[in-house]
Parts: sequence; structure tokens; C-alpha cells
Amino acid sequence: MSDPRDLAPADPAVISQLLDGRWRDVREQARELASDPRFAVGTSELGESVETQRERILERLHVLAAAGYSRLGFPTRYGGRNDVGGSVTGFEMLALGDLSLLVKSGVQWGLFGGAILHLGRDHHHERYLRDIIELRLLGCFAMTESGHGSDVANLRTTATFDPVTDEFVVRTPDTSARKEFIGNAARDGHAAVVFAQLITRGETQGVHAFVVPIRTDDGAPAPGVTIGDCGLKGGLNGVDNGRLSFDDVRIPRASLLNRYGDVAADGTYSTPIENKTARFFTMLGTLVQGRISVAAGAGSATKVALTIAVRYAEQRRQFEHPDGGEIVILDYLAHQRRLLPVLAKTYAVHFAQLELVAGLHETTPDLDEPIGERPVEHPDRRELESRAAGLKAIATWHATSTIQACREACGGAGYLAENRLPALKADTDVFTTFEGDNTVLLQLLAKELLTGYRDHVGELDLLGTARFVGEQVVETVVERAGGHRLLQRLRDAAPTAGEDGRVTDHDWQIEMFEFREKHLLDTLARRLRRAIDAEARSGRELPSEDPFAVLNAAQDHLLAAARAHIDSVLLAAFVHGIESLQPGPEHDLLVALCDLFALSTIEAERGWFQEHGRLTAARSKSVIAEVNALCELIRPHARTLVDAFAVPEASVTTAMLDTQAG
Amino acid sequence: MSDPRDLAPADPAVISQLLDGRWRDVREQARELASDPRFAVGTSELGESVETQRERILERLHVLAAAGYSRLGFPTRYGGRNDVGGSVTGFEMLALGDLSLLVKSGVQWGLFGGAILHLGRDHHHERYLRDIIELRLLGCFAMTESGHGSDVANLRTTATFDPVTDEFVVRTPDTSARKEFIGNAARDGHAAVVFAQLITRGETQGVHAFVVPIRTDDGAPAPGVTIGDCGLKGGLNGVDNGRLSFDDVRIPRASLLNRYGDVAADGTYSTPIENKTARFFTMLGTLVQGRISVAAGAGSATKVALTIAVRYAEQRRQFEHPDGGEIVILDYLAHQRRLLPVLAKTYAVHFAQLELVAGLHETTPDLDEPIGERPVEHPDRRELESRAAGLKAIATWHATSTIQACREACGGAGYLAENRLPALKADTDVFTTFEGDNTVLLQLLAKELLTGYRDHVGELDLLGTARFVGEQVVETVVERAGGHRLLQRLRDAAPTAGEDGRVTDHDWQIEMFEFREKHLLDTLARRLRRAIDAEARSGRELPSEDPFAVLNAAQDHLLAAARAHIDSVLLAAFVHGIESLQPGPEHDLLVALCDLFALSTIEAERGWFQEHGRLTAARSKSVIAEVNALCELIRPHARTLVDAFAVPEASVTTAMLDTQAG
Repeated sequence: MSDPRDLAPADPAVISQLLDGRWRDVREQARELASDPRFAVGTSELGESVETQRERILERLHVLAAAGYSRLGFPTRYGGRNDVGGSVTGFEMLALGDLSLLVKSGVQWGLFGGAILHLGRDHHHERYLRDIIELRLLGCFAMTESGHGSDVANLRTTATFDPVTDEFVVRTPDTSARKEFIGNAARDGHAAVVFAQLITRGETQGVHAFVVPIRTDDGAPAPGVTIGDCGLKGGLNGVDNGRLSFDDVRIPRASLLNRYGDVAADGTYSTPIENKTARFFTMLGTLVQGRISVAAGAGSATKVALTIAVRYAEQRRQFEHPDGGEIVILDYLAHQRRLLPVLAKTYAVHFAQLELVAGLHETTPDLDEPIGERPVEHPDRRELESRAAGLKAIATWHATSTIQACREACGGAGYLAENRLPALKADTDVFTTFEGDNTVLLQLLAKELLTGYRDHVGELDLLGTARFVGEQVVETVVERAGGHRLLQRLRDAAPTAGEDGRVTDHDWQIEMFEFREKHLLDTLARRLRRAIDAEARSGRELPSEDPFAVLNAAQDHLLAAARAHIDSVLLAAFVHGIESLQPGPEHDLLVALCDLFALSTIEAERGWFQEHGRLTAARSKSVIAEVNALCELIRPHARTLVDAFAVPEASVTTAMLDTQAG
Repeated sequence: MSDPRDLAPADPAVISQLLDGRWRDVREQARELASDPRFAVGTSELGESVETQRERILERLHVLAAAGYSRLGFPTRYGGRNDVGGSVTGFEMLALGDLSLLVKSGVQWGLFGGAILHLGRDHHHERYLRDIIELRLLGCFAMTESGHGSDVANLRTTATFDPVTDEFVVRTPDTSARKEFIGNAARDGHAAVVFAQLITRGETQGVHAFVVPIRTDDGAPAPGVTIGDCGLKGGLNGVDNGRLSFDDVRIPRASLLNRYGDVAADGTYSTPIENKTARFFTMLGTLVQGRISVAAGAGSATKVALTIAVRYAEQRRQFEHPDGGEIVILDYLAHQRRLLPVLAKTYAVHFAQLELVAGLHETTPDLDEPIGERPVEHPDRRELESRAAGLKAIATWHATSTIQACREACGGAGYLAENRLPALKADTDVFTTFEGDNTVLLQLLAKELLTGYRDHVGELDLLGTARFVGEQVVETVVERAGGHRLLQRLRDAAPTAGEDGRVTDHDWQIEMFEFREKHLLDTLARRLRRAIDAEARSGRELPSEDPFAVLNAAQDHLLAAARAHIDSVLLAAFVHGIESLQPGPEHDLLVALCDLFALSTIEAERGWFQEHGRLTAARSKSVIAEVNALCELIRPHARTLVDAFAVPEASVTTAMLDTQAG
């Protein structure tokens, strides 16, 4: 409250340009498309039946295809634009509108098309890509099974090679192996990329992907294919999720997407990556765009919700002001506390996402290059994948909690469908689950941070991680995780606005983030090592010799380490994002917002910081006070900060804002 | 992990009897009714149109009325049972099923019927209650306006007395005074209790309630009444929320519900409570049952979600166990952390709710006594009202976050409507808003704790509170808040299971809760006093002389104080609830669960406790370790603890549990 600083009015257009980043042209095109009445997110559609929603979304998908939206992420020779970063950016922009359309397009072009693009070879591209881009062939991505969602390596559908007919036989052994929650399956898909255990010559070669027709030309299920409907969902009801079972469905040998593993006519298996685990993760890694896209979509939905809630909070008045009139609700500290720290974090996530998309673009091979001439994997790819896993988890949880806060901040009006927040809530809810359960993803990130080498351990195989870490020199492992490097860059870049020793001192904030990340990783590695040592000495100090128990006891520590790492990534990206701004009101406003992100993060973790001797009681209290002061400082600029998201008006036009105007 | 304790198997029926409490017979009847197929929460209804949902809910409302459900809370002479506590308990049980039916019944009998019961006189009862109970008259509770939700005192609909015709003229001056989000208005209601500023002889006497016909016998809007439809909502779509505007609608003088204020034929106003503010709050206070009922409903929905999620977590397996087979997901520490502390808090909220309902029952006048012979207000009523406000806020936020956690804990399956969690999420979302916005309610509680006298200050008038507190002796004020008394009773009652000095020592836990509550209140009172003093000395130490700014700066402190108080209430109620159990496995299990509640609360507040010198770094870490140990200790009994809720099977039968069985 007693902060003497004040911020000059900033120009949202300047900030908007910064947020738009490298693919600004894609964003501008998307904003134009959003004003097309065919994409209006209007009240006339509210309450329509699931069938009507599905029909409408399919129609709009065709409009998107006709507008060329689907071309960005595919090779030029099939009508594509060979622009992976542009493709993810386009997806992000689409998420400012109807999220069923977003997910339907993601299934069709990102997952189905992407699997054929990245796991197939030229003859698959030749056969399918043009039809996929132009929507003559709709398809599914059939990975998840009823019994295996997170644990993909152990899914149970089989594809057994029969050399007599030169075919694979696809089989669902029982209900738990049924493909579950498969978009495009219940109604529209005619083919599916099916993930199954490849068996040839009596040997299982692990999970591979196969193109399987699931419907005949007249739309009936293909022979041997049973199709179920997942029915009504918590949201995204324009997407036809279904269930697929295969009763010895025969497909030609060429249906195997064989970039990373192939079967000869005689049944001989061959692969460019001998290690089975490494092969599996390389294959999955080519699909990382899906996770990055979900995080991008979550970010957009968060921006729409915040734009609506901040506008409402600036219009809505409640309770009398002593000086007369009624108090604008955004003037209440509690309301600022609800909306402004999450607004700051939304900026941080956005900047981190910009870097991630650029990283994806740089590490994805040139799509116009023939498959045979591409390297198996870009050297920076694995760091990108674990970063994507962590950011997906944090961005989608942030969306869930922020949209919830926005709904509550708009009171009863926020509960009416005409004001959009209920659909934003309902549609994004599953983002924390699909493309990888968030808890599982954070574990994946933590293990990558610990080991630096994934080849030595199975994904999510905690025991392997522990044993591996036990063999490492702990400090080296932590160095390798990149924490120091990242934060050193940040320290070099961050200008310190506050006076020395204040909690707004950037060096101090960075040290806090760095300490937390390093300490959590360091102690985690030591703890696992001790556990392994103790196990080796026959269980002394341990309640049991069950290695699962040992690892499981450290699960909360593992998750905390992953969160701390992503917090550092966010802070670094935020500071880095601001760097390119000229001095001026926009720069000053974003520095204050970055302070709010940093300090509200430290505030949330102040229990931990005090436990670890990094925050005195007095300083901890001053962090809280400074968060309040920053809320007050930034409050007059809240509208500028949401306007800078440049969400198309069609997406934020709601009844409560219309009637409340003035 | 290293805790040597172990718990013997407990009998869920024994715990269930404890949880059922005083109105066990009402609960048992409700469980029987729940098995009636007409109340099945089945998948066949999923995806139906809003109109179909509204129709179905109205049909079921008639079934409820025929079953006598509506009788509990009304006087015997109109066919009621004169059992207020039983009535709230019945509402709580109904919330285990379809929440639209719950809310529709709450509008009809709790709000519409309740307003006539508590604000009207015998002639109103005579005229309306039988028809309301037996559903011959459906009605609305028209309080909220588009422009005024929380700030009821300033709503703008007027009812002006015209002595010439002996009528009130009800008028909606503009759109912002339109009655908004009114249940039963869009489709079924024929009358409404309308809250309006009573004007007679040119003077405004404050908000009063009037019975206004809104539809004619053929269902058309009554002359001068405009009815709108709120349309699709985030949930509760079986309830027909609408908007009401009145264009000089004339109603007889007898339509004024005149228990607390009356107008004679000549326009003279009279009242048993001269102070306008006190009168307003006494009137509102008679309606406290609504808040208690919403909290009860939130508790039931939380129990349904937890029952589903715990059952799923005991069936679902994912990732291989080193000893073979796959790991049951509830064996993961992270999964226990997600579900067990919120399960413990659900018990705490339940026990607090039992006490609150008993308090409501005791402080509500005998409904069979003639109005004229009743006291204006029970002396314990105000403490009950502020307790109800706080508990409503905490119980409904707890429901929102717990149901969200349950959805995520069930992964993609949790997102399918057939598994019930999406509807539980969607339907309960608005509970944090209606019957009082939670943030506003916590402020109300905090101010009651500070002042002890509400007559001196307007509800939610922060400035009045501050000035008033400035005149008080701070320590006395804190004493009066009841913190000490409450916790002393608790200390006397709580057996200490852990060894001295351990974090499981109950005395220590209680001291921690007590210190937090007392310190927050104490410092808040001092802070407000200092602010007022400073203001009096012309603004020194303050950034401005704006008294709103002074109070607003303390808003987070105010909310923290209210939360701390409710935490103490929850702990006291939990301990008190266990007291009546005989020694045995059930007792031991609930003591462990109470420890988990206490320690996970302290863990969540450990930043604050360290800031205030009440927790060393080492002890703070040991709190975290003990929460983990308690999760491991309680995990084998999780199913017992949810089974003890005795949720009817019809409410938790879901597809994912069927197919996952075994």
C-alpha cells in the first residue's frame, strides 16, 4: 500500500506485438478468421443436442480446411506449408474460439495426420496426407485403452504379422484393451492410427502404429471393428469420442507406420534404434507437438476467461463507497488477489510457450526433406520433450484454476452459459488429463532432470531411475539438469528495478528460484541414492525392502522438484520476453507484472523457503505485503494487460458485459 | 513412512451411525427413497434438452411432495412436521442424488415457503402453506437483482403504498433492478416473494418482502410482469432460472409479509424493531436455513465424489510393480495426498454441519406456536448466523476443489458423463456464489468475530466496523469471539494419542489452531484501530485519507481471520464428534483421520506459522512427514471411510466402476 511507485499508461498494442512473437502473421490471419460469423461463439447454439454439436463442428472443420488452416504443419508437396511453429500457433489462436472445434482439428491434423507424418514413410505420406489435409479422410489417434492410459508401453492391443497373407492381424484381447476416449471415432472417422504391440515370428517388438480402416464408405463399422460411443462428456461435446475394438482385423503389411521399425515379407523385424525403450520414446517424442498444442490451447482459454473477468470486474460495482457511488469490484484487494497474480502467471506461461514453440520448430526436421535423409533425432529434442511435459502440466492446471477463479469472480452471471465461462471451464477440464496426466508428466520431467539420460531408464519406471541415480555423482546430475545455465542467463538479462535488498530486487528473486530448484533436485538425488544404498545393505533404515515403497515415499519430493524447475523456466522466459521491449511504460508495466509473478510464486512457497533457511519471518511477511502493493500498482493497468492478449471481440462478447456497459 | 502404528479394520456401519447423528431416521427414509427408480441418476437422461430436464425435475418434485418430503419444515396445522433440523437433514440427503431436484425443492419449500413461513404472519400461512407443501402453488424467491446481488440492502425494486386503493405498487425502475437468476421463474412459478424497498408516505423503510403473483392460471405472465429465461447454465439445468421485471404491478396491502414491518390502511409504518439495519438483518437472519442447506448439499456432493474416486482408486491399476502385477493407484503417495486429506476435511465439515443443524433447530421458534407469541429473536441466533456464513463458504469451496480433485483422480473416465463426476462438478459450481458469495460471507463472519454486536454496524459495511472496533478494547473483543471457549472445550475433550512433543500431540495441534485464530483477530483489531487513529490524526502513516483504502488494505487479513476461525470450528467439531465413540478400531481410525485434518491444515498454513514463530523449520518439515505417514496409515481404510458415508448405491453406480470391477 505504501509503495511510492506509479506506472504510466501503457499501449496494449505494443505489448500485444511482443506477445504475438515470431508467428504474428499467423495470429493476425486467425483473428480475421475469428470474425467470420461461421465461427461465432454465440448464444444461439447453447443447449443444442450432442448430435447437433457434432454436426456443427464437422461443418466448421470443413470451413477451416477450406481456409487453409490445416496446411501449416505439413510438407509442401502435399499442399502443406512446412511450418511447424506456425501450425502450433494457429492451433493456439483457434483455442480463442470453440474448444470442440479446436480438439476436433487437433485430432484430425495434429494426432492422426501427425502420426502418419512422423511415424510413417514417404509412401504413407503420398497415400494419406493430401486427403487428411483436405478432409477427404477423417481419422483417429487410437492409443489410449480402457486399462492403459498413462502406461502406454504396456497397452495390450496386438498386431501380429501373418507372413502367409502378408498382413497384420489386429486384435483386442479383452475389454480392458479396448481403445477408449478416441476422438473422431464415434461418428466421423474412417481410419485410425492404432497403437499395438507388434508381434512377428512369435516375438513382441513393442508398441508400433498401424493405419486401420474403421468404417466402410457408407459409414458402417468396417468388418471386425466394433465402435462404441463415449456419449456425453463434461465438455467438448462437439467431438465424437468413441471406443474401438478389433476382432482379428486384417490389414496389409504396408499399414505399419514403419519409420522406426519395419517387418519384411518373411517376418524379419528391423529398426534404426535397437534399444526397445529408446525406440519407444523416440517414437512418442515425435508426437510432442500434441502436448505443446494442449498447453497452447489452455493458455488461450485462460486469456479469454481473464479478459471476460477483468472487463466485468471493471464494470461491476457493489456496496457503497464512503465518498458516494458504488465500489468497482476490481478495486477490492481480494478481487485483485484473485485475478492479478494469475494474470501475471498467464504472461509467464505465454512467454515460456513462445520459447517452447520456437524450440519445437527448430528441432523438428524440415518436413520437405525425404524421410530417409533426416537424422533420427535432433540432439536438443529430449530437453524440449521434458520441458513440454512439465509446461503442459503447469499450463493446464493454471487454466483450470484460473478459469474457476474467473467464474467465481463473475458471480451468478459467470454461471450463465451466455457469459461463456461455463463452457470454458467444462471444455478445458480434461486438458489436465489428455496428452498425458499432469502428475505423470511432472514425474517424467523430474526424472529427466535427475538423470539427463533417458535411454537408461524406462519412462515412468521409478525404480530404474533410482538405481541409475544411485550410480551417478549427484552434483553432476544436478548441473546437467540445466538449472544453473538457465538462471545465469536470466541473471545476466534481468535489470533490477528495486533497490538492493528489497524483495523486488531481481537478483534476489532469481536466487530464490534457483535455490529452490537446485536444492529440491539435489536432495532428491541424495535421498534416492541413500535409499538404494540402504536397500543394498539389506533394508536397514527402511521399513521394508519393497523398492516401490522407497520410491513412492519420495513421490511428493519428485513432483515438487518438477514444479520448481518449471517455475524457473517461467521466470526466465518472462524476463527474457521483456528484454526486447524498449524502455517505456510497457516495459515498466511488464517488469512490475514479472515481479508479481515472481513474488506471488515465492509467497506460495514461503513455507518451504522458511523451512530451508532462505526466508526470515520478517522477509516472508514483506513478500506478502509487496504482492499486495503490486496488485494495487498494477490494478489500473489490468484492462491494458488483458487487451494486449488481443482476443477477438467475438470471443469475449457476452451478455453480462453488454448489459453492464457504462 | 516409518510410523510403527497400525490400525485394525473398522466397521463402516459403526462410523455411519455416528455420522448419521440425531436425525438418523430422516436419513434412513431418504436412503429408501433413493432406491426408488424414479430418482435414479442414470445414464439414460444424459444429454437431454433443457426443457426435458426441467419437465423431469418438476415431475420428481411432485413425487417428493407425495412422499411427504416437503412436510418436515412446516407447522403441523398445515400438514407439516414442525421439524426444522429434520428438514435440513432431508435436504442434505436429497443432495446425494440429482442436484437440480435438490435446488428446485430448495427454492420451492426452503426459500419461497420459508420466506412466507418466517416473514409472514398467520394469515399468510393460512393462505399459502398447504398449497406450497402440496405443490399446488409453485413460487420463487425474488431477491437478487442484476445490479445488486451481495448488497441486498441496496436493491432497487420498489413497493410503494397507495392508500387510495389500499395496494402496493411494485416497480422495476430499470434493467439493473431486474430480478435475476430466480429459480422457478422461467417456467413453473406462479407467485414470487419479491424483496423491494418499501415506500409509504414518501418515506423508504428499507427492504421488505411481498407476495406477488407472476403468472395467471393459464401460465401466461401476469399483467405488468415481464418474465425472461436465464437459459442454459453451467449446471443445474433442471431448474428454470429466470428474470422478473415489474411494471407498476398492483398487489393488495395484505401481500406484505408483515412480521417485522407493517403498513396500516392510512399508510402508517410500524415495526417491532425500530433500528432499520437491525430489522433488515433480523429478517435476513430468519432465512439462514438456506445457507445451512447449501453447505449441507455441498457436503453430500463431496461425499458422492469421494466415494466414486476412492472406489476407482482401489480398482484402477497403472504401471508395473517390481514384484509383478500392476500398482493400484491409491497406493501412490501422490494419489493418497490428493484424496485423503480432503476426505479428512469432509469428515470435519460433516461434524461441524451436524452441530450447526442442531443449533438451527434449537434457535428456531416452535413452528406450531402462533407468530404473535414468539420472541423476536433467539439470543444465540446471531452467533449461529455468522457460523453458518463461514461454514457455507468453507464447505462449498471444499466441494468445488474436492470434486475437481476427484475428477482428475479418475482421469479420462472421470470426464465421461456416465461416471457422474462432470455433473457433480457442474451442478455444485454455483454453490460458492448463491446464498451469499463466499468472500462476502467470510467478511461477514470476520466482522461478527470482531465486533460481537452487529446492530452497531451495517452488514458488510467495513467502515462502520472499523470505526466501531476503534472504540473497543481489543482483547475483550477477541475473547467475545468465542475462540478461547471453543478451543478450551476441545482441549478438555481431546485425548492425546501421540507421545508428548510430537506433532500428533492433540494439545499442540489445538494450541496451533487457537494461536492462529486469536493472533489474526487480535492483530486485525489493532490494525483497524491504528488505521482509525491515524485517520483521526489527519492521515499520517496512511497513503490517503480515503477510509475505503484503509479498510481495503486489510481485506486479506480479514479473510484469513475468518478462515482461521472456521478451521478451529472444524477441528473442535471433529474432536467432539469422535467423543461419543467407544474405544475400538472405529475410534482409532477417526482419531488418525482427525490428526490428518489437523496436520494437513497446519501444513497448508506452515508459511504463516513460521512467520509468527510458532513452527521451527525442523518441526514444519516433520508436519509434512507426518501427513505422509498418516496417508499411508489411513490408506487401507479409505474404502471404510467412504462406505461410512452410506451413499445410496444408485448414486455411485457408474460405468467405470462396473467395468473395472475386480
